Parts: sequence; structure tokens; C-alpha cells
Amino acid sequence: MKIYADHAATTKMSKAVIALMTECMENIYGNPSSLHGPGQRAAEVLAQAREKVAVLLGAEPGEIFFTSGGSEADNQAIRSAALSGKRKGKTHLISTEIEHHAVLHTLKKLEGEGFEVTLLPVYEDGIVRVEDVKAAIREDTALVSVMAANNEIGTIQPIKEIGALCREAGVIFHTDAVQAAGHIRIDVTKMNVDMLSLSAHKFGGPKGVGALYVKKGNPLFSLIEGGAQERGRRAGTENVPGIVGMAEAFSLAVEKLEEHKAYESGLRDALIAGLSKIPHARLNGDRIRRLPGNVNFCFEGIEGEALLLLLNEKGIAASSGSACASGSLNPSHVLLALGLPHEVAHGSLRLTLSAENRMEEVEVMIKEITGAVEYLRGISPVWEELEKGERDHVI
Amino acid sequence: MKIYADHAATTKMSKAVIALMTECMENIYGNPSSLHGPGQRAAEVLAQAREKVAVLLGAEPGEIFFTSGGSEADNQAIRSAALSGKRKGKTHLISTEIEHHAVLHTLKKLEGEGFEVTLLPVYEDGIVRVEDVKAAIREDTALVSVMAANNEIGTIQPIKEIGALCREAGVIFHTDAVQAAGHIRIDVTKMNVDMLSLSAHKFGGPKGVGALYVKKGNPLFSLIEGGAQERGRRAGTENVPGIVGMAEAFSLAVEKLEEHKAYESGLRDALIAGLSKIPHARLNGDRIRRLPGNVNFCFEGIEGEALLLLLNEKGIAASSGSACASGSLNPSHVLLALGLPHEVAHGSLRLTLSAENRMEEVEVMIKEITGAVEYLRGISPVWEELEKGERDHVI
Repeated sequence: MKIYADHAATTKMSKAVIALMTECMENIYGNPSSLHGPGQRAAEVLAQAREKVAVLLGAEPGEIFFTSGGSEADNQAIRSAALSGKRKGKTHLISTEIEHHAVLHTLKKLEGEGFEVTLLPVYEDGIVRVEDVKAAIREDTALVSVMAANNEIGTIQPIKEIGALCREAGVIFHTDAVQAAGHIRIDVTKMNVDMLSLSAHKFGGPKGVGALYVKKGNPLFSLIEGGAQERGRRAGTENVPGIVGMAEAFSLAVEKLEEHKAYESGLRDALIAGLSKIPHARLNGDRIRRLPGNVNFCFEGIEGEALLLLLNEKGIAASSGSACASGSLNPSHVLLALGLPHEVAHGSLRLTLSAENRMEEVEVMIKEITGAVEYLRGISPVWEELEKGERDHVI
Repeated sequence: MKIYADHAATTKMSKAVIALMTECMENIYGNPSSLHGPGQRAAEVLAQAREKVAVLLGAEPGEIFFTSGGSEADNQAIRSAALSGKRKGKTHLISTEIEHHAVLHTLKKLEGEGFEVTLLPVYEDGIVRVEDVKAAIREDTALVSVMAANNEIGTIQPIKEIGALCREAGVIFHTDAVQAAGHIRIDVTKMNVDMLSLSAHKFGGPKGVGALYVKKGNPLFSLIEGGAQERGRRAGTENVPGIVGMAEAFSLAVEKLEEHKAYESGLRDALIAGLSKIPHARLNGDRIRRLPGNVNFCFEGIEGEALLLLLNEKGIAASSGSACASGSLNPSHVLLALGLPHEVAHGSLRLTLSAENRMEEVEVMIKEITGAVEYLRGISPVWEELEKGERDHVI
């Protein structure tokens, strides 16, 4: 049995989305910037996709800017708010310790360019406190950027409340909704956000396409200079078939959102219950306020990579954390932010489910993971020390 | 009869490329950064595409960085060379007056950041002079960026010679080969280039994918921060199906390059001969050193946009210049660089052919364009003044 349980890394595309993109590649060949028939047909299709994405977010079409993905959207949002702030003498940026690297590395670079960055903690539950955001906001704060849901531990952040706070303080609020969109309800108005990043391949759309919502009146500067595409804010011929695929996938995901949420939560809860029976195992991130498909565990005494390899041999595709950071020898910054010691953070396993997964697969995963953890502990010198009492259990 | 003669704006994708991408979207769903089976299959496919593109350019796979398109590649190349130069106290950048806006606007922005930019002229033939490049290079020159072939008038620049000069002077040389690749022979070694930009949708590949060749040892900084994709130089999950499509399209284009070149040149020459019979018409750009499919004319006394609309009604998709600049009321910066007066530059028509065009279509275009020009001149006050001798003919 082959089990794909790494939907936070990327999702499979549905046949309907692939068929639509194929049709678009075959028939809508013009450049949307061209004034002739084939160009205008491409422009129409692009406008329809923009309208579709806007409606699904509760936004206006003019507030949607298509990008090459979530990372580009995050980069552009943060750089725009920072640059706009700088012009008003505001050089303080607030974010959290558990953001995606697209946010954290952009902030790091901005630190080198004269900005001051405050990264808020998340505590053991992986949730940012609204009071902490409030306390961090200063006169010179240009931006608050807090992700809607975390990519590793799936924790859902109090975006609406943070947004309200930022609006009151007159600070631009950006949320990286790459993991949230298509999985939990997103409404830019209700969430009080000024900017919001999306990535198509996280909700059944194609890789290489994303979008940035920017509330009317907020600044947006180009990351890529050139032609006047995307109202002069993002140069480069638009990826028309990709954008069409994104809009369709988002639409399908939102349509089935409640149904999938209920179904995935059921799988998730069964998986959490099963894995919790493994001794010295710890669920990372809040038990309730987490994405419907997210399961993230640490198992004391083992290495996450070894566990992944064993599971892969059994046909189970899982992850130790973010795909973007795989291959790195450092433990996850998200798990460290929860207060986990290095050696425990190394033993993490992320399983992210979709509506394509079955309860039967959950049962197989519980059995295989339990067996693999036992096996690895049997050959682990650290586990031996723990068992002999030469070392204290942390979890 | 529907005639598509705007292949410089974007090309149709071949059925083979679409089929391959569709197959890839269906079966290669993993994230190439994931360590499990589906991820590693995606990583393999990505590596094969990189190898393919590298071989076609005469480069090493480690020298190819995939981007979201030609504009991003141009931006990243120029910013990287500029930043690297700045660190050594070199803040002078050289380019030409006829570059694509992705190059020109990036340079403009760098001017605002303390760089000095020299834009070389191209004279009436639309060709940059090697001597001019030589004379412009200074001790503090960080970069020379000259496009391989122009997107409006199709003129082919002396890249090899400029490259040799830059190498001798120790200056980084970038070429925007977006219009050239797949249409004329590209070999990064023979051409002496350090960096070269590509766009897939200009040679039958998908929109939203490009590549940047960077010769080993040259600096490359990220435009998009985040994950460690593209060896840490370009964050964001790779657009695997798009990259696969790009590699396949490039391979098909290069395979048929000589055959298509001969065929397209035949169409081009017939079209040029036919349109040259229109009185007071002027071929823009060198007659010989131009892309096999490029035809660019000015017709005195008429507006290019009006001509395009008439042709569009007849089913002919053409352009007045760059698709990226369409909708702009300014005359083309390329035509102005040839020394054409504003009123003449406004009357331009670009027809760009591919191997899909037929001689029969060329005949129809000559007939329709001749008729349309006559018609528009018949209602043009400027033409009336010219006819009456109240105004002097410029061409």
C-alpha cells in the first residue's frame, strides 16, 4: 500500500484541474498583454480567474496580484510594507518565531538593511498571543506578519484578533495563508488583513503559481521589474494556464471545505490517538487549534530522518518538517520555538492528510510508525541511556 | 483565415510538450525537496530537465537556475552583478537603449540606488557596436548587459565579440537571450557569456517558466528568499511540470533550429519584399542580421494601433512592438533608438513568424496590410499634408 501523507509539502492535482489547464494550454495561447483576438481571449480568462480568486477570499479583483508562488508573495508583501514604512521613518517589523523561511529570511535580510525585527514567541502550544503582539507594537512599527496556520505543526493563529489590533494601531498586517487557504475558511475582511499570501500547489493547484491579496490603498512595490503586467506591480508574462488552474483548484477546495475539514479531522484525530499510545511520544502544537489534516509528533530517543526512511520503505511518504528545509541538519526552528530541546526536536514526524487519505491508511500508519519507533529505539544508544536511567526523559 | 503572426509575444505550445506536462502533473506530484519516494521522483525529473537545458546551452547542470520567466531571470542577473560589483567598489553598469524593460527598468531602479548606468546607442541598423562597448568600459564597470536579439526589430547583436571584450576587461557579461533562444544557435561558451536569461514561452514552452545560466564562479544572489531550492539561489517549490515542459520545448526547438531558420527566413523575406512595395514604408532593423521570423515596418502617416485593429478584424494577430508595452501611448523606445521621429515610430507593425506559418498566410498578410495602410492613409490628416507637400516625408 502506498500512502501519501505529506500534503503540507505539496498536494496532488485533481483530474479536473489538470484537464482545465491542458485545455487552456491547447487553446488559450495568446499573451494577455496583446491587443489582438488570441491575446484578448487570454486576458479574459485571466480576468475570470482573478475574479474567482477574489470572490473566494472576499476581496475585489483589483486586490489580487498573481505571483510565481507563496514564497514570492511573502517576499513582496514584506518588502513592500518595509519600504513603505521606511519612507515614513518606520523601520520596526514584527513577526513570529514559527514563520516559514520565506518570511524569516526576508526579515533577516531586512535586518541587514537597517530594519529592526521583533520575533514573537509561541509558547508550548505553538500559538501566538494577541497580548504579545499588542505589547510589541511601537510608534515605528511598519508591519506585523503572522502566518494563518503553521506549516509544520498546523497551529491556527488568532489572525482576526491580531488584525483588529493592527488596524487600530495603523500598522500593516500581513498573513502567510499558504497552509491555511483551501483548508480553513479565509475571508480577508473578517480576518482584518491588509495582505495575504497564497500558494496554489498547497490546495490542489499547480506548482509555480501563487497570489498576493493587497487591500486597496496599501502599498505594493515590484520585486520583478519590467512590463506593466499585474497593474505594474509584477512584471513578466502571466502564467495563464497556471493561474486558471489555481483559481479552479481554490474554488474546488473552498466548495468542499467543510466536508473535507470534518473528514480530515476524523482521520487526524484517529492518527493522533493511535500515535499517542507510543510511550514518550509528544503531539506538537495545540490539540484543537490545528489544521484538520495536521499531525506532528516527537518520539524521544530517535532521529526523524531514520524514521522517515523506514516509513518510506513501507510506502509511507511523510516528512520531518518543512520540505523546504529538508536536507538541513538543524532541528526545526518551529519545534525549538515550542521549547523542545534539540535532541527531541530531531525526532519529529509530520503527517499531513487530505480528503484522499482513508481510515485504512491511518490504521496502517499507526501500526508501521509504532513498529518503526520500537525498532529504532532498539538500536538507539540514547534510548538505551534513557531506559537505564542514565539520562532523564524529557517527554 | 486566422493568422497568428505574433510569436515574439508568445508561441503556441506543441501537442508533445502539453502531453508531457499533463503526464507530469498527473504522475509526478511530489515536492522535489521531500526525501520520500514521490519527492525523489520529482527531484529526478527536475534534474533531468536541468541537464537537458544545460546540454542545449553548452553549460553544466549546476550553472542552470530555473526562474518564473525571462523577466525574473533578467532582474536577478542584473541585481546580482550590481550587488557583487558594489562590494568591490564597482558601481558602473553598461547596457543598450534597446533592451527589454525587464533590463531597462531594473537598471533605472539601480540608478536610484547609487549606480551609474550607460546605455549604448544602436544606430539606424539597430545593432550595438563592439567599439562602443569597449569605449564605455571603465575601471568601475560591474556589468555589461546586451540582449542577444531584440524583441521588436529582431536585430542580432555581436554577443561573442562583446563577450570576449568583457572577459578581457574582467567585467561580468549578461545577455538577455529570451528572443534568441530556440531561434538562433546559443552556446554559452562560444558566446563568452557569464549570465544568460531564457523564457520558455518564447520557444513553444509554457508561460511562467524561465532559466538563468550563471557561469561557475560568478555571483548569484537571491531575489526571492526562503527555502533552499535552486542551491539556495531561488526560493519556492520548483514548478516541476513547467520546467519539464520548458526543457522539452527547448530541445524540440534546438533540434529543428536550422530547418525552421531556413523556412522562417523564406517567409520573412517574402513578407519583407511584399511590404516594401508599399510607398513610404521602412523596414526597421538590419535586413540581414535579424531573427529568422522577425519583420518590423513603419508606415508613414498612420497609427500602428489603428492598423492592428484593422488587421485583427481580418483575423491577423500582429503587434506594434513589445506585448509588454502594449496599451502604452508612448512610441517604442527601440524605434526611437533607431533615430526614427516620434510620429513615424507610432506607425510601426511587428509581424513575427514561426514554422507554423505558411507562405499562403504571408500572401494574405501582404494583401491585407497593403489595403489597410491605403485605407488608413485615405482618412489620415497627416497623410493628406504629406501628399499636398505641406509636410516633408521622413521615409
